[in-house]
Order: sequence, then C-alpha cells, then structure tokens
Amino acid sequence: MNKHKRIGILTSGGDCAGLNAAIRGVVRCANQQGWEVLGICQATNGLMADPPNAIPLTVANVDPILTRGGTILGTTNKGNPFAFKFPDGTVGDRSQDIINGYYKLGLDVLIGIGGDGSLAILHRLAKQGKFNFIGIPKTIDNDVGITERSIGFDTAVTIATEALDRLHFTAASHNRVIILEVMGRDAGHIALNAGIAGGADVILIPEINYKLENICNAIQERQKRGQHYTLVIVSEAVCTEAGENMTKMEQFGQCRFGGIGQYLSDKIGEATGAESRVTVLGHVQRGGISSPHDRLLASAFGVAAVEAIAREEYDVMVTWQNREVITVPISEAIKTYRVVDPEGTLVKTARGLGICLGD
Amino acid sequence: MNKHKRIGILTSGGDCAGLNAAIRGVVRCANQQGWEVLGICQATNGLMADPPNAIPLTVANVDPILTRGGTILGTTNKGNPFAFKFPDGTVGDRSQDIINGYYKLGLDVLIGIGGDGSLAILHRLAKQGKFNFIGIPKTIDNDVGITERSIGFDTAVTIATEALDRLHFTAASHNRVIILEVMGRDAGHIALNAGIAGGADVILIPEINYKLENICNAIQERQKRGQHYTLVIVSEAVCTEAGENMTKMEQFGQCRFGGIGQYLSDKIGEATGAESRVTVLGHVQRGGISSPHDRLLASAFGVAAVEAIAREEYDVMVTWQNREVITVPISEAIKTYRVVDPEGTLVKTARGLGICLGD
Amino acid sequence: MNKHKRIGILTSGGDCAGLNAAIRGVVRCANQQGWEVLGICQATNGLMADPPNAIPLTVANVDPILTRGGTILGTTNKGNPFAFKFPDGTVGDRSQDIINGYYKLGLDVLIGIGGDGSLAILHRLAKQGKFNFIGIPKTIDNDVGITERSIGFDTAVTIATEALDRLHFTAASHNRVIILEVMGRDAGHIALNAGIAGGADVILIPEINYKLENICNAIQERQKRGQHYTLVIVSEAVCTEAGENMTKMEQFGQCRFGGIGQYLSDKIGEATGAESRVTVLGHVQRGGISSPHDRLLASAFGVAAVEAIAREEYDVMVTWQNREVITVPISEAIKTYRVVDPEGTLVKTARGLGICLGD
Amino acid sequence: MNKHKRIGILTSGGDCAGLNAAIRGVVRCANQQGWEVLGICQATNGLMADPPNAIPLTVANVDPILTRGGTILGTTNKGNPFAFKFPDGTVGDRSQDIINGYYKLGLDVLIGIGGDGSLAILHRLAKQGKFNFIGIPKTIDNDVGITERSIGFDTAVTIATEALDRLHFTAASHNRVIILEVMGRDAGHIALNAGIAGGADVILIPEINYKLENICNAIQERQKRGQHYTLVIVSEAVCTEAGENMTKMEQFGQCRFGGIGQYLSDKIGEATGAESRVTVLGHVQRGGISSPHDRLLASAFGVAAVEAIAREEYDVMVTWQNREVITVPISEAIKTYRVVDPEGTLVKTARGLGICLGD
Repeated sequence: MNKHKRIGILTSGGDCAGLNAAIRGVVRCANQQGWEVLGICQATNGLMADPPNAIPLTVANVDPILTRGGTILGTTNKGNPFAFKFPDGTVGDRSQDIINGYYKLGLDVLIGIGGDGSLAILHRLAKQGKFNFIGIPKTIDNDVGITERSIGFDTAVTIATEALDRLHFTAASHNRVIILEVMGRDAGHIALNAGIAGGADVILIPEINYKLENICNAIQERQKRGQHYTLVIVSEAVCTEAGENMTKMEQFGQCRFGGIGQYLSDKIGEATGAESRVTVLGHVQRGGISSPHDRLLASAFGVAAVEAIAREEYDVMVTWQNREVITVPISEAIKTYRVVDPEGTLVKTARGLGICLGD
Repeated sequence: MNKHKRIGILTSGGDCAGLNAAIRGVVRCANQQGWEVLGICQATNGLMADPPNAIPLTVANVDPILTRGGTILGTTNKGNPFAFKFPDGTVGDRSQDIINGYYKLGLDVLIGIGGDGSLAILHRLAKQGKFNFIGIPKTIDNDVGITERSIGFDTAVTIATEALDRLHFTAASHNRVIILEVMGRDAGHIALNAGIAGGADVILIPEINYKLENICNAIQERQKRGQHYTLVIVSEAVCTEAGENMTKMEQFGQCRFGGIGQYLSDKIGEATGAESRVTVLGHVQRGGISSPHDRLLASAFGVAAVEAIAREEYDVMVTWQNREVITVPISEAIKTYRVVDPEGTLVKTARGLGICLGD
Repeated sequence: MNKHKRIGILTSGGDCAGLNAAIRGVVRCANQQGWEVLGICQATNGLMADPPNAIPLTVANVDPILTRGGTILGTTNKGNPFAFKFPDGTVGDRSQDIINGYYKLGLDVLIGIGGDGSLAILHRLAKQGKFNFIGIPKTIDNDVGITERSIGFDTAVTIATEALDRLHFTAASHNRVIILEVMGRDAGHIALNAGIAGGADVILIPEINYKLENICNAIQERQKRGQHYTLVIVSEAVCTEAGENMTKMEQFGQCRFGGIGQYLSDKIGEATGAESRVTVLGHVQRGGISSPHDRLLASAFGVAAVEAIAREEYDVMVTWQNREVITVPISEAIKTYRVVDPEGTLVKTARGLGICLGD
Repeated sequence: MNKHKRIGILTSGGDCAGLNAAIRGVVRCANQQGWEVLGICQATNGLMADPPNAIPLTVANVDPILTRGGTILGTTNKGNPFAFKFPDGTVGDRSQDIINGYYKLGLDVLIGIGGDGSLAILHRLAKQGKFNFIGIPKTIDNDVGITERSIGFDTAVTIATEALDRLHFTAASHNRVIILEVMGRDAGHIALNAGIAGGADVILIPEINYKLENICNAIQERQKRGQHYTLVIVSEAVCTEAGENMTKMEQFGQCRFGGIGQYLSDKIGEATGAESRVTVLGHVQRGGISSPHDRLLASAFGVAAVEAIAREEYDVMVTWQNREVITVPISEAIKTYRVVDPEGTLVKTARGLGICLGD
C-alpha cells in the first residue's frame, strides 16, 4: 500500500497566487508517505527537454514558499504540444517528447496544476502515453466549472477590490468617473465579485450585454442625487458596442494600445462631459502574497492529490464541493467552462444593490 | 406586491467584520423597492427602550460603511431578555418590552443579524410576539451549522493568518517556540483554518484532545531536523491537560490573567527547555476593514433577506449553500452548532501536511 | 491670547492620502482653543461661489476620517483663478471673487493644503486680498523643496512598492520583462523610492537620461546570470528617446493611448525579443487608506498650523525638518521645486545595489 | 583602491523588519566591488564557535529576502560576551574567542547590525581585537539617538497602528475601553507614533508620568460627549502607579502573567465601571513583511556601509540625518539613548489633538 512512488509535478498556464502552496502541500504529504517528488520546470517544456528539466523537491525547499505568489517551477501559457510552434515557424506534434520525458524521469504519476486548457492537454497526453495523471484546478478566472473554487481566484478578487477601495476616494474628491479594467478571460467573475465587494456603481461583464446609454444614465442619475462620481469596473473581455473584443485584437497586433477601459472612458466622456480616468491593473492581479483562502484551498488540493495517489485513483481532478475536497473524473471536470450565470445569486445581489449592469 | 413596508434591522452578539456591509445591502435593496428601514440601536436594547431607540437608514447613510468593521448600530453580547439582569441584581422577563417596541415602531418585519444564540432568542421573541422575523448569520466562529459561510469568519481567519506570517520570521530568527492564541468560542475553526493557511507546526483545537507530550515531541523532532523553532496556534477554548477551560474561568473571575496560550508556553518551556513567547490577538480579530469575501457574502445576505420579505417569506434564515444564497426555516437553522469535524477535509489536510494536532 | 477665531480650510490640487488627517488635526486643535473651523468646498471654487460654499467642521465630523484617503472637502487641480476659464471659453481674472468669499465668511485666517502650485496661488491671493494665510504642503510627488516630507508621498510609495512586490513573482514565473509606470509629475521620487524598496532591476526617472541600449544590456546580462526576468519601474515624466513627454502629449490630445511604459515595452520587446507586459497604476496611487506615516505627518502639520495661528504668525508654511515641525515664510517655501538629486543618497543607493538607471 | 576584501556581517539583538534588506544591500554592493561576504550565524555566537559558524552570501542568496522579516543569519538578544553565562551557571569573558573567530575567518572588516547595546559590545570587541568594524543601527524602539531613523521602527509603528485601526470599530460597537499594549523597551516611541497615527484617545509612555485619575476623567468626559468607548495605547515600559515595571518583573519571574495593559484594564474597570479589554501585540510587532520605508532605509544603510569600507573608513556607524546617509564615529553614536522628548513635536501634536497623556 505504501509502496514507494516518484511523483512529478508541474504548473501550467498563467501563474497565480497559491500555486506554490499547492506544490508545498504535495511535497509535504508525499514526504509523510516516504515518497519522492520531482518538480518539472516550465510546464511541459521541462518534460520535452532532453534530458528532462526537473529538480527534486524536499520539505526544506518548499516550506518557505507557502505565502509566495507565482510558481517556483516556472510556467508558460504558450503553446499546445500537439501543435507546437518551432522557432523556425513550422508547427509539429511534440506530444511524444513529453511522454518520453515522463518515462525518462521514471515517474509513477504526474500532478498538473492548471486551468481547463492545460488540464485538457495533460489529460490527452496521459491517455496517449498511458501514464497516470491527477489534475489540480487553478485559475484567477474561476472558470473551471465543476469545482466551487479554484486556486488564485480569491487573491485576484482581493487585489481588484482593494484597487476599488482606493479609487473610491480619489473619484469622490475630484468628481470623476473612474474605470477599473480587470482580468477574467472570457468570464466576468473577477469583475462581478470585486465590483460588489468594492462598491462599484457600474459592473460590466461579458455575460451581460450593455448599452452605453444605460451606463451614462446611471452616471447622470447619480449626479442628480448629489453623487458626482462613479466607479466602473469592467472585465477585459467585454466588447465595444460594435462587438470588438479589444484584448483579443491586441493579442493579434491589430490594436496596440488601450483596451475596453480606455474605450469606455472616451465614450462616457463624450456622452456625459464627465472627467474620466482609467486604471488597468494588469498582472498585479496575479498577486504577490497569496490570500489565506487560496493557501488553504491549495494546501487541501495538494494533500488530496497525494491521497488519491495513495488510493491509486488516477485521471481525476480534485475539486472543492460543499465544504469537502472530492475527486472527479478529469474528463468530466474539463467539460464545463463556467461563465457567470446571469440568473445566479451574485447577479441578483448586484441588481438588488442597485448596481448598473449595463442592461 | 410592492406594498410599502417598514423594516427594522438590528445587530446582536459580538461584533465582527461585514455587519455594516449587510446593513448596507438591506438598505440599498429596500430602497429599490421604495421601502423604509429603521436601524435599531444596541441590539434588543433599542426595542426595549421607551420610546424605542431607532434611526432611519438611507442609502446616503450606509454607502460609506461598506468596508468598515464593527456595526454602526452598536451591539451587545450580554444578556437574554427572557432572563434580564436589572441593575439592582434581580432577574426578570423583559421579552414583552421588546415585542412592544416592535409594534410601537410600526414595523412590518425585523431583520436580525446574529450568531446562533441571538437568532434563537429573536426567533422565540417573534413567535411569542407574532411578528415577522428574518435572520442573517454572522459569527467569527463559523459555528452556525446550516450555512457554509457566516459573516465575519473570513476576516478573522485573514487576521490570524497574517499574525502567523509575522510570527514565523521572528520565531525562526530567535529559535523560539511562539504560541498564538486565537478566538473561536467552543469551536476550533479559526485556529484550524489560519493554522493551515499560515503554516503553523502545531494546531490545537477543542475538538481534538491533545497530550503535551505529543506537542513536545513534535518540537523536538523539528529540532532534530534542523528547524529550531515552532509555531503553535491554539484556540481559546482548548483546555488544560486537567480539563480546565481558562477562558470560561476568566469570565467567572476565577483566573484573572493568562489563558491557554500562557499555560502551554509554561508547560512547553518546562518540558523542552525551549524559549517560548505568547501573543494573544484578542479583539484585533474582530477586524477593522472587512475582507472582500465578507463584504460580498454580507451584501448577498442583505439583498436576499429583502427579497424574502418581497416574497412574504418569514421566519427564515438566509444561508450560503453550494454557490447560492437560499433561505431555510430558522427553527432548523439554529438546531446545529457546527464544530470542526475531526474526520473532515481540513483536519485531513492538516494531517496530510504533517502538522501536529496534539493527538 | 485665546481670542476667538474663525478658520477657513481648503484642499487644492490633486488629492492624496493624508488630507483628511490634516483637516482633522486642524479641527481638533482649533476645538481645544475654542475656535471655529469652516471647511471650504472644492478648493477656491468654494470661495468664488456666491454665497461661498462652506460647511462648519466639528470634532464629531472629522474623527471618522483619520484613515480615509481623498478629501472630504473635495478639490480640483484645474485652473488658476487669475486666468480663469469660463464655460464659454473666455478667460478672466476671478481672484477678487475669491478674496470676497474670504471676507463674506468672516474668516480670520485661511489654511490651504496644497502642492507648490496651489500654495503659490493662495499666497498671491492672500497678499492681494490682505488676508491671513497658512500653507500645509501635500504632494504625492514629494517635490515641495523645503520640507523633508509632504503629505501623501509615503502612501504613494507604499502602493507602488506593493505593486512591484506582486509583479516580481509573476515576472519570474513567466520569464518576462514587466514595466510598472508610476506617477511623479516632473520628479522621479516615487519611482526611485519604490524602485529601491520593491527590488526593481531598472529604475527610470526624468532627472537621469537613459539609453534604451543600456536597459537592454541590463536585461541581457541578467539573462546570462540565469535571471530570466526583469522588473522596470518608470516615472510617467520620463521621455521617449526622441525627447517626447507622453503624459503631457496625452493631456494635449496628441496621443490618446499608451504612455512611456507602453513605449518602453515595445522598444524592449523589439530589441531583446523578451516578452514584456505593462501595468499603469494610475489613480490607485492616490490611495484609499493613508499610511501611518502620512497620518502622523498630517496630524502634526494640522496642529502646527493652528499653533502658528495662536502665535498670530501668518504667511508661513509648516514643514518637517530634522525631526521637528517648523514654520518657514511661504514665499521661501514655494521657491524650490525639488527634483531627485542625481548625486544624492538614494541615487547612490540605487547604483550601489547594481540597479540600472539607464545611463 | 578596489583591493579584494572579505566582509563579515552579523545581526545582533532582537530581530526586526528590514534586517534582511540591509544584509542584501551589503551583499549586492560588495558584489559590485568584487568582494566577498560571509554571513555569521547567531550573532557573536557564530564567531565564538570553533570553527566559526559562517556562510558565504551571494546575490542569488539574498535577492529573495528583500521583503522578509527577521534575519536569515539568526540572532540572539541574550548575553554579553564579556560576561558570558556558561551552561553550568558560571560566568566568564569570552571576548577573545570572538576576536579569534574574526581572524580565523580572515575577515577584513565586520559589519554589525544591532541596537545600541549590541553596537557598544561590538565596538569594544573591535578595539580590543584591533579589527575593523562598521555599525548599522536597527531597533524597533527607535532609541539609537544619533540617527533620525533606525531599521525596524517604521514597520513596528505600522503594525501597531493597524491594530488600533481594527480595535477602534470593535470598541465603538460594544462601548468598551480597549487597551493595546505595545513594545518599546524604555522609550515610548512606538506608542506615541502609533497612538497619534491610529487615533488613540489616551497614550501612555514612560517619559510622562500619568495619574489613573486623569485617564478615568478622560474616559468619562468622552462618555459625556456621547463617545462611549475609548482606545488606550500603552508602552510596555510604563509603570504601575506604585512605580513597578511589570515587564521587567516578568523577566525576573516575579510576575508570571499580565502586564501594564492588564493592570490598567483592571484599575480603569474598577474606577469607571466601563467594560474593558486588553490586546498584547507581542512579537507580531517585529513583523513579517518589511514596510517600504524600512527596506529603503536598510538598503541605503547596507550600501553606505560598503562605501565606507571602500573609503577604508572604520569604527563608524551609518546614520540617516536630514535626507542623507552619513557616517559618525561609533563611540559618539552609542553615547545617546534617545527617549521621547516631552517638549518635542510629537508630544505637542498629541496635546494639540486633545489626546490624554495621563498627566
């Protein structure tokens, strides 16, 4: 039962707060079992390299990293090994190289910490390479559907809320409209959660279509009530009224500067005459110190992943559901991309508070 | 359907972060309905007074209090109106005075924000007085059983974790045993959550019996591994080995100074020779600025309470269950006092991390 | 000596953390003397209005604002009353209207909290109107020359440093160049202070000319040493290599988007092939909660201003010099705009740490 | 001029925030010169050991520690090597062992980071052993007289202020007197600075004698004005009315529990009938994350110490004076223990704000 095992662990996709706490959880729990852990560097790149790029992880290595943001293993959010882009521009399938890396390291199981995209790729690799895999969900975007919570989201919301707290007072002092653009990929979770927690007057998320006219009306009604400033929080994935996703355009080089925040600032300024300012939080949201909540969740996930290994239960993802960490088949876990439910509790809360959602 | 209503709201029991966000949620949502809200001062004392002590609450009053700890309405955790202690030392039933206060104010419904004890008393008053009541759960102790989350807990855990983060470095620099005593009433939730999140080496909670010998062994094993310091977090309700609850003894005047933290420090020092220090966080845990999570939860609860009123659904408590706010009959809600489950996910996490739980 | 006085107080220029603590200090100290304080709204606009727009300030009003960012009196950083821009586009001298406002309110003295520009204007108004004036220096830019510290600077540096702390980990996890653009008007104090405190690898300030080549060399030397990421902090006033100040161009509508941060990101990406990202902190730097240091300084300045009034010492500014608050003639105070000294202690510190300053 | 050198560095006395930033500053600046740095473990104990206990410090070692509290070198605040207490209870002079350690390591100079006591001992050792020494002042107590600022003080004040911010709301919600006991050794700097910044109503410091009667009067006058709560901050070194220093008594085993905070709570409760609570911050004040100010100061001191070595200027301490870091002869530096000046700016500020100082 307590047969010796060698566990590989990697982090994949955009970094976030809590990754290191999950790595620490895995290493400490494996150490209790007397097992070995190898940390694989730079996501699947570390397995692709020949020889593979990996380092032994001990309790002494990981104890100081509990609170630290980012990932000591490095990560990348570029590239799919099934359609790998070589430096010369050609594209090829490097999946076998990764699988070979797994066997060269002599691993018994690979733990991957990633978002839905990364976990789907790792799952496919595991099936193809017939190796053991366990997934741990992380994403500041909170869009892995099957788990109530993913690593990194709480810290991102905390940082965005804190920014609203700060902007509140400068907006009020100068009678300004201040727009805060936050991350979230295709989902509005960060904007919605931070917007409610931080007292935003307008919250714009990709799941709900807005009209500029409605926003301007909300600003002007506030002015009539003597509130000469307005705080707007907008998810980066919100489109222009013409339907353009500026974040994606920027990625493809079609629009170098600005973003949806700047667009809204211009349009609101023109329509209402209000003085407006934009803050783009950017990578600050990925966090330096993990929130206690993210550390707790990550520690629980790390331990649960090792316990699944002890039960020889593979091809699962650990999830948080109703006060418990449970495992679910990974094929099921990656099926649902969870956006904000426009009929859900938090949208109802926002409407109940009288926050303008643009519709 | 949107018949005019006058809502009374009070806060009862120990204060915590998020109470003001809940009050704000109620007032903003009632304002959307065109309803009135009266804030009742100092818990049931405000209804007992003649005339009742209450103030009208408007959106302008409550908007600045979203982030603020404590409660603008004041509160008390003293006394049961069914066995009220008069200044002259006699005891009597003042429940009818409170009920009279409700009717004198012309209320249609009373919203009470409190822990299990306060909610049980308010529920009993509502039944006796045949008035409408809705409960919102708050407690830094996280011991209201039926809801996954209560207002104030997240902030308390955040503050206790931050204290561990700070103590970590001073303990390591001086090779000390540092003991942090935290709140929690009869449950170990704060100690367990903060202990995992803050990297404690020993976590002591009232739900798990400890032996001093086990703690001393853990300290000495760390020393053998070159870790010459140890962080201990202990819940105030943990008893001495002889079974004395020092917090309760202090309340009854039997022990003026010290607490379980000091007791452990002395015993550990004697047994191991280690230099040890104690920090008693005390009321700092009740918090100044609410965590984003507590503000979000409190806002959702405040809105949901008003929505229940709109549905004329009374004698319920709002709860957080599986990503949703739902209402449950209050009689059911107050039945379960939830302590830490010694077989639950978080205790398993702690054991998986190799943390000493004293058993 | 303790003759009754009516003090007017206003805040002028960009808002910052600590303004409210200074207002509170003035009101509490005046209250001890038995004097009245009127808060004038929206800087000199409140005096210009007919009737003047002012509110009585009491201890009860100001006690809750000690920690709050912004200014409860409102402010503006637009416009010089000697060349006032009317809505119809014409320009005129409205100085006499302000002076009239002073006399209509029956003030004995005006306390103005502002930066060098605002204080110079108020000083000129006081001379022209023959009224009593005392200045309190505030500026996140730290550019009022004669005082060691100005209100708002410490909080701005704290927030910028915290952003670097957070960016550090995401940069390292992804092997990126991350550029943080901070405020500072024409001086590099925020960038230099936060850059050292936050461990930036490159600090660019307007007082030191940079070459892109030097920055790229620093990035590449780090890569050679195995440090595949670089943190750059840049003051908004730093110009392009061609000498353009993008912040000023933006103000004049010549360049709608981007800023020096985006410019550097593009140039560095082109020259080194490194992946780079930009964060523009913007108004977040003006702060929500004042740092303890700013509150202490602001309280000391508020009290010292009232004590100067008690001594009937006017036309002075309060300053912090060598552990003491002392008064200096305002004419002298506003003479020196203090930029970063390229031979000073902090620049030497940056060089000693091996930080690239671009030269 | 750039002759190769081997620098030893140690930290001595109680730990505080910023020690690691100073170590990092020394190592990075020495690295620029091509010099070696040896980190000596556990203060002078590392030199006393045979062989000496020291580790080479490189830029890669120290870069991650910029923000971290405590000291990676370890420290001790026990013992004077001129009167060393052996385990068997005898006392002897071990100064020569330390001097031997210096020469065994082949050091060219020793940098010691410590408070006035530690620096005096190191200065005496350097004279006796005829070796080169440079001091860097650190103390959360801010009592090294000749420098405007010492490492660790700003972080300690920040943490104590934050505690007051939190206690404020719980005190107000429950109409309580809350007493916060803070560190400070024989000086009241932390209590005075944090008390003003955190809005305390009563500040008690050892430099000003108090009467309980005056404190009780202040509490009752607040009640008359409708402020039914009071925040008291007290320095650990404040004595009872009978003149007992409870912190010192505790050290000598004469009083196991409580402290001046508990004493005041009891006395105030008896005299006024107010409900009161005590928080003893303890080692939390020594800090986890250094404040930006402490990191900046520590970095500047670290660099300046190495620059002094480059100038072959020894037996000096680096100090902050009037915006500059300058060196002063160490014999002069340790002469003045700086307590709070009862006629100074901050005491005047406290009085001007109407804060009760007990006299």
